[in-house]
Amino acid sequence: LDSATKGKYQQYKNLMSRIADIRYANAVLQWDQETYLPVKGAEARGQQIATLSELAHEQFSSPFLGELLNELAADTNITGNERKNILLTLDDYSKNKKYPGSFVRGMSEQINRTFHAWIEARKHKSFSVMQPELDKLLELKKQESDILGYEKHVYDAHLNEHDKGVTVEFADKIFGELQPILTDTLTAIQQKTEPAEALDWSMPKDLQWQLGMDILKLMGFDFTSGRQDVSEHPFTISFHPTDVRITTRINENDFSGMLWSCIHEGGHGIYEQGLLPDEYGLPLGEAASLSIHESQSRLWENNIGRSRAFCKLLLARLKDAFPQRFREVSEEVFYKAANIVKPSLIRTEADEVTYHHHVLIRYELEKNLLEGTLKTADLPFYWNQAYKSQLGLDVPDDNQGCLQDVHWSHGSFGYFPTYTLGSLYAVQFFDTYAKSSPGWEDDIAAGNFHPLKNWLSTHIFPYGRYYNSRELCNKCTGESLNTSRFSAYLNEKFKSNSPIEHE
Amino acid sequence: LDSATKGKYQQYKNLMSRIADIRYANAVLQWDQETYLPVKGAEARGQQIATLSELAHEQFSSPFLGELLNELAADTNITGNERKNILLTLDDYSKNKKYPGSFVRGMSEQINRTFHAWIEARKHKSFSVMQPELDKLLELKKQESDILGYEKHVYDAHLNEHDKGVTVEFADKIFGELQPILTDTLTAIQQKTEPAEALDWSMPKDLQWQLGMDILKLMGFDFTSGRQDVSEHPFTISFHPTDVRITTRINENDFSGMLWSCIHEGGHGIYEQGLLPDEYGLPLGEAASLSIHESQSRLWENNIGRSRAFCKLLLARLKDAFPQRFREVSEEVFYKAANIVKPSLIRTEADEVTYHHHVLIRYELEKNLLEGTLKTADLPFYWNQAYKSQLGLDVPDDNQGCLQDVHWSHGSFGYFPTYTLGSLYAVQFFDTYAKSSPGWEDDIAAGNFHPLKNWLSTHIFPYGRYYNSRELCNKCTGESLNTSRFSAYLNEKFKSNSPIEHE
Repeated sequence: LDSATKGKYQQYKNLMSRIADIRYANAVLQWDQETYLPVKGAEARGQQIATLSELAHEQFSSPFLGELLNELAADTNITGNERKNILLTLDDYSKNKKYPGSFVRGMSEQINRTFHAWIEARKHKSFSVMQPELDKLLELKKQESDILGYEKHVYDAHLNEHDKGVTVEFADKIFGELQPILTDTLTAIQQKTEPAEALDWSMPKDLQWQLGMDILKLMGFDFTSGRQDVSEHPFTISFHPTDVRITTRINENDFSGMLWSCIHEGGHGIYEQGLLPDEYGLPLGEAASLSIHESQSRLWENNIGRSRAFCKLLLARLKDAFPQRFREVSEEVFYKAANIVKPSLIRTEADEVTYHHHVLIRYELEKNLLEGTLKTADLPFYWNQAYKSQLGLDVPDDNQGCLQDVHWSHGSFGYFPTYTLGSLYAVQFFDTYAKSSPGWEDDIAAGNFHPLKNWLSTHIFPYGRYYNSRELCNKCTGESLNTSRFSAYLNEKFKSNSPIEHE
Repeated sequence: LDSATKGKYQQYKNLMSRIADIRYANAVLQWDQETYLPVKGAEARGQQIATLSELAHEQFSSPFLGELLNELAADTNITGNERKNILLTLDDYSKNKKYPGSFVRGMSEQINRTFHAWIEARKHKSFSVMQPELDKLLELKKQESDILGYEKHVYDAHLNEHDKGVTVEFADKIFGELQPILTDTLTAIQQKTEPAEALDWSMPKDLQWQLGMDILKLMGFDFTSGRQDVSEHPFTISFHPTDVRITTRINENDFSGMLWSCIHEGGHGIYEQGLLPDEYGLPLGEAASLSIHESQSRLWENNIGRSRAFCKLLLARLKDAFPQRFREVSEEVFYKAANIVKPSLIRTEADEVTYHHHVLIRYELEKNLLEGTLKTADLPFYWNQAYKSQLGLDVPDDNQGCLQDVHWSHGSFGYFPTYTLGSLYAVQFFDTYAKSSPGWEDDIAAGNFHPLKNWLSTHIFPYGRYYNSRELCNKCTGESLNTSRFSAYLNEKFKSNSPIEHE
């Protein structure tokens, strides 16, 4: 590149870095909001977050940046990574320009009100407490579909926001294939004659905290570039690859919830820590998509975290820490207990099979909410009906029903599907890694996660948004996204001929 | 006000509120930086803070705001509080306009580097580690004096920043009067034949934490509008009257340090929580000055917290919690132990007499640093010399010497004097309160802090910056700032005829 082009590219980098500073500052405010904010501070915080959102929007809409981007995009001397950054940013810029500033601020404030209504509603275990706010938010989300534009379905605009290129048509196809796979697997498991033995997962809070921290350190989550805190709902948020925050929640009666949630958020966190700091604020320094983000957390949580090898490692640690309770527990019993499949009410505590029932239920509901065939007031009724018909469960109250997730109150429609897509990607990535690293089970059982982290650092992290989800999958695994790998994985692990049953 | 004027005033309020959002968002980033930031996140955080500083500066420099302010200032229909807000904002605006944006950013980045150099220097117990960064910062502070302007002394510009109207001339006079008062008091105390009995102040960390929280709750610090966390150096920071953060540090060998620091920061915090939320972002919603801020913390810490009445309350609680250790301790012994006056190395742990030696030493040093008669490289030498001559102490290492305070690394020159000015105000406020509330000792001993908080909420909090420090003191106490009240207070408490010695 000649020095004039270099200068322009640097100017673009500087502007983007400044916008990233505002966005990540806002992320700090959001992190604090969900970890440490005093109750009465909610209103002021909502206003502060709205102001920063508006500022970031203004800065990212500046005509000067637009001209610079168009100029750089037209410059054929710019190739490779630089060109990719420019084109992706121009795409983001054009999309951002569609939003009026007042809409951005209104959305941010409405999200804040809905989030706090959700907190309040959970206190009363009553969806009706948040329903009016959710309704207003949903209206804004519909307006957002119109602003963003879509070809076929009002929901497409939001699916596309979370994973570029995903449409109702595409998701209907994948989820359509998946539904019978899930049903068959669940039926086969339920027909087994020897159910797995349930373990006592109770543990004092401070010991659970320590266990979670130890496992995160082993996985390679870098505590000099991140930390863990406690929140109502576990999440990962990044302010820079050197400052990644994950959260957990602890239930004294069940450390398994905390444990696999730590591994899950740790997977997200390790991805964020692995993004390129030199590309800060640029597309190549950002996660490929939410589906790929979820592939990372799922790979660690399920393909690794619920493997025989990991269970062996974990049980050895538990035997050391709690000889009394775990002395008599065999590896096989522990592995089975870690892989119990049983319909349950709470998504985040679900096993790796029925988890996707939870997602498919939400997918249908939010599709219907957005297209207007479902009214928010009727949400609990249809939610509960779906849980009855798909999982055979009665929902006793809204906290165990449609109030369990923070997502809708955050305005995240189109997010849930990425959990299932991510799980499909996870299996495909994991199969590829396992093939290339035949000793993986010995490594994991020995607590050596370096080979896995290295593989991910080579094949996933450094690309940022260079490839979209499906492109990255093709490049990395040589295959398109499909349900057959996932089906084979479930088959091997859970169907009648699996080693679980025939040790 | 007619509706056009009302509309303009509202426009001004909205602009100021937006700027406050950016500033307080930046305060959240700074709070997080000193409580929870992972080590490697420091650089990115510094950049994010610099960006927000620059943005706030830009927004507060907008010509549109300037025109609006001038228009409102010229409007004779606006009177009272509204007029005061306008005039104070116009004053701030004019001052802010003097700063070039690049200077603001450079300063913010240099402060970040110096702060982290201070952290590093403390690890090595060596001032020389931070000296080059402090030197660069000092150069910027000198430039800042020129930008701000001053009549007589380069240090005046910075004194004025922390307490409007304070000059070297004024401070030299007050501190000149104070020096012999302090020396006489200390000499008198040291000549006493019966030294106070030292207590065992050790306590496990979690119990200390609980004790501090209990006392803060009793004082009336509102934990629904604030919280306490742990940091290297205790501080108070506010994001809104409904979200005030205080911090503490805990030394297992000495809970007295934690305890009176909690009371101190609690005093700051209660002030911030008492500011008017309707004046958010406006001068009348801000603390009067740093001296007045310090008067609040000192009043709680010393005039209340080290009074016989408070010691009685505290000892009763300690006897409940630790019957073994405190059963034999009399109120008199406890009161004396809480009021031991003894030269020591660390300012924040100093008693209420020698504390001001620490401040007067720093005042002279920073005056000399700014006027250039002292080089940063010579700081440890002159620091140690002053401690020897004024307090008779040898400084064993820089952590116990010139590295003990965060202030200079934060670029805060002119801050230390407000601690002593605040203590003088505190005594004057306290005397006025005590006169108006003759039963104050019974209230405090009974753990009833409502009358005090009500008095402060009536006479100090709601004025915001309506009055400057000296005006507020005159209005509230009927007297100018003086050293004679403080002298009388020390006399009564510490000189030979005091009840401490003749029970």
